[in-house]
Amino acid sequence: MSVPERLLLGSGPSPVPRRVLDALAQPTIGHLDPVFAEIMDRCRARLRDVLLTSNDVTLPISGTGSAGMEAMVVNFVRPGDRVVCGVNGLFGQRMADELGRNGADVVVVEGEWGRAIPTERLLEAVDDRTAALFVVHGETSTGVRQPLDGLADACRAVDALLLVDCVTSLAGAPIAIDAEGVDVAFSGTQKCLNAPPGLAPLTVGPRALERLRPGRSWYFDLTLLLGYWTPGEAARAYHHTAPINLVYALDEALAIVLEEGLPERWERHADAHEELLDELRELGFERLAPEGEQLASLLCVRVPEGIDEAAVRRALLLRHDIEISGGLGPLAGRVWRIGVMGEGARPEARERLVEALRAELA
Amino acid sequence: MSVPERLLLGSGPSPVPRRVLDALAQPTIGHLDPVFAEIMDRCRARLRDVLLTSNDVTLPISGTGSAGMEAMVVNFVRPGDRVVCGVNGLFGQRMADELGRNGADVVVVEGEWGRAIPTERLLEAVDDRTAALFVVHGETSTGVRQPLDGLADACRAVDALLLVDCVTSLAGAPIAIDAEGVDVAFSGTQKCLNAPPGLAPLTVGPRALERLRPGRSWYFDLTLLLGYWTPGEAARAYHHTAPINLVYALDEALAIVLEEGLPERWERHADAHEELLDELRELGFERLAPEGEQLASLLCVRVPEGIDEAAVRRALLLRHDIEISGGLGPLAGRVWRIGVMGEGARPEARERLVEALRAELA
Repeated sequence: MSVPERLLLGSGPSPVPRRVLDALAQPTIGHLDPVFAEIMDRCRARLRDVLLTSNDVTLPISGTGSAGMEAMVVNFVRPGDRVVCGVNGLFGQRMADELGRNGADVVVVEGEWGRAIPTERLLEAVDDRTAALFVVHGETSTGVRQPLDGLADACRAVDALLLVDCVTSLAGAPIAIDAEGVDVAFSGTQKCLNAPPGLAPLTVGPRALERLRPGRSWYFDLTLLLGYWTPGEAARAYHHTAPINLVYALDEALAIVLEEGLPERWERHADAHEELLDELRELGFERLAPEGEQLASLLCVRVPEGIDEAAVRRALLLRHDIEISGGLGPLAGRVWRIGVMGEGARPEARERLVEALRAELA
Repeated sequence: MSVPERLLLGSGPSPVPRRVLDALAQPTIGHLDPVFAEIMDRCRARLRDVLLTSNDVTLPISGTGSAGMEAMVVNFVRPGDRVVCGVNGLFGQRMADELGRNGADVVVVEGEWGRAIPTERLLEAVDDRTAALFVVHGETSTGVRQPLDGLADACRAVDALLLVDCVTSLAGAPIAIDAEGVDVAFSGTQKCLNAPPGLAPLTVGPRALERLRPGRSWYFDLTLLLGYWTPGEAARAYHHTAPINLVYALDEALAIVLEEGLPERWERHADAHEELLDELRELGFERLAPEGEQLASLLCVRVPEGIDEAAVRRALLLRHDIEISGGLGPLAGRVWRIGVMGEGARPEARERLVEALRAELA
């Protein structure tokens, strides 16, 4: 099998460094092997460091990012729970769908696609019947960053949980689970962590743990998963066979993030975003998100009239081996979503993309 | 990162050939890349060939084997459905748990751990109120193969579905989805397919498809998954980001199975099982399953009195780099489970295990 090298500058997966692919291809060993237990523990410690949390319950769920979403809902939302759900893009919609399927009383706070939801609108919806507030920190469909300021205090005041999707923001835009008072968050490996897709980091704080009540899902049952991932003094208990090689890759990808340092990495992403935006503006593109609401790791730009966006994307992929993503939902055909994620947030990536774009748009 | 080479002769994961690890480490590309679409289609075609089915709906679910179980239940079992569930080991128990969580009216047909469930006991439980019958074809906790003869006819007679777990049997013991009238089956990649864990092959026949009614799970919603995996004439629609590299590995692992040929592979597994059993008998071990009820790909043996089974297993792992598995549930501390799976079903593997065992038991 031989797969072409693409420069992955879409909405994810992002460029996976050879070092991570080499870790991925280490020999498969058993899920109860003491060597694997060490890797699991190290991977969890690194995840905590990247999430800026001391939560002991921090682990990769065995599925892609949306598996993290489902794990969050089935363990921390009960049928009938009033859950306020911010929706200003596809991933907020997806969560509202998931909550509804699981019997929650979903209170959608709609926001404009391409804008952050005003904090006061979210706070207005949180009342003393509210069990949880959910927001998408980094909306992958629009390139918008949702501020978390004030949300945790409002949730604590009414004894509600703050639930956050940080799939596309983690390690690419500032987020600090403990300092920002997030109770449960999930992420993905194939965005700013630059690991292959297939795992969903999940972190759970003490307030949420008190309400852990797994429901209909056996696969995502956190009480069972903890017996395997965080056994404490007990013997590690088999739940399901962890995706061993993906854990190797995640562990190595986290090491790379921590070697760089989070503040340095965040700054690099912010700079790479601005530099790319400057170049794209010269070509007639404008960012969807207004200044101050942008997500560093995903630059979503309006495609100017007269450009066949699908044809240009296809040419970028097939002639230049560069992937960028089109729009989703109401933005389909109208925007491009350009990943600025980890190794994709480097000058070389920007230069290659801009050069190819200039050639195709000429 | 450097992981030791272990000879994986436990209950899974099984030995992953270098060729499969090399496929795994091919560059990650996008989940909507036309090159990946070709790999998906080829992988699905190979899966059909290995499952001996013409089911168009044959795809890998993005999670380990138990994710396949959950995908089966959330899509094909409705709350209140009367589901007959054979339980003669841990994986039958697991299914009964999953069914109960999902609101099914579960009728458990208990069998002895270490024996197949007599077909007539299963048939007695299937009546005209029955929506589905579930059995574990290869019980990983006991090394027992459940015959499927007569089950499909009985199900069809009352318009029920036949649901099968073939995680540990697929590609190691004969199973033919279409010829045996199986309506839905799930498997895993880390057993006789010799791929890394993380995907769960699922196949769905036409009778089941008519009853597809996804419920509470967004992640496993087959109506959405089909828009991505089997779009037909429609544009391939994003659902979640597939675990790209795991699909490469599965595709390559399936190619290896098909190069050998299924009848040859089944025969090799049966022979390897017998040869290993002969050697183990000389050391005082006896098989749990009686002749005719054994699963070729997993040899479960009683550990003779006087052997500290956990200590010997640990020594095998740490001194000889060989993994075998202990017992689960009521069999914990009393049996070993030795995988005879794919590359683990070779004379070299047997010889290495037996030599190490002789050294440790001396």
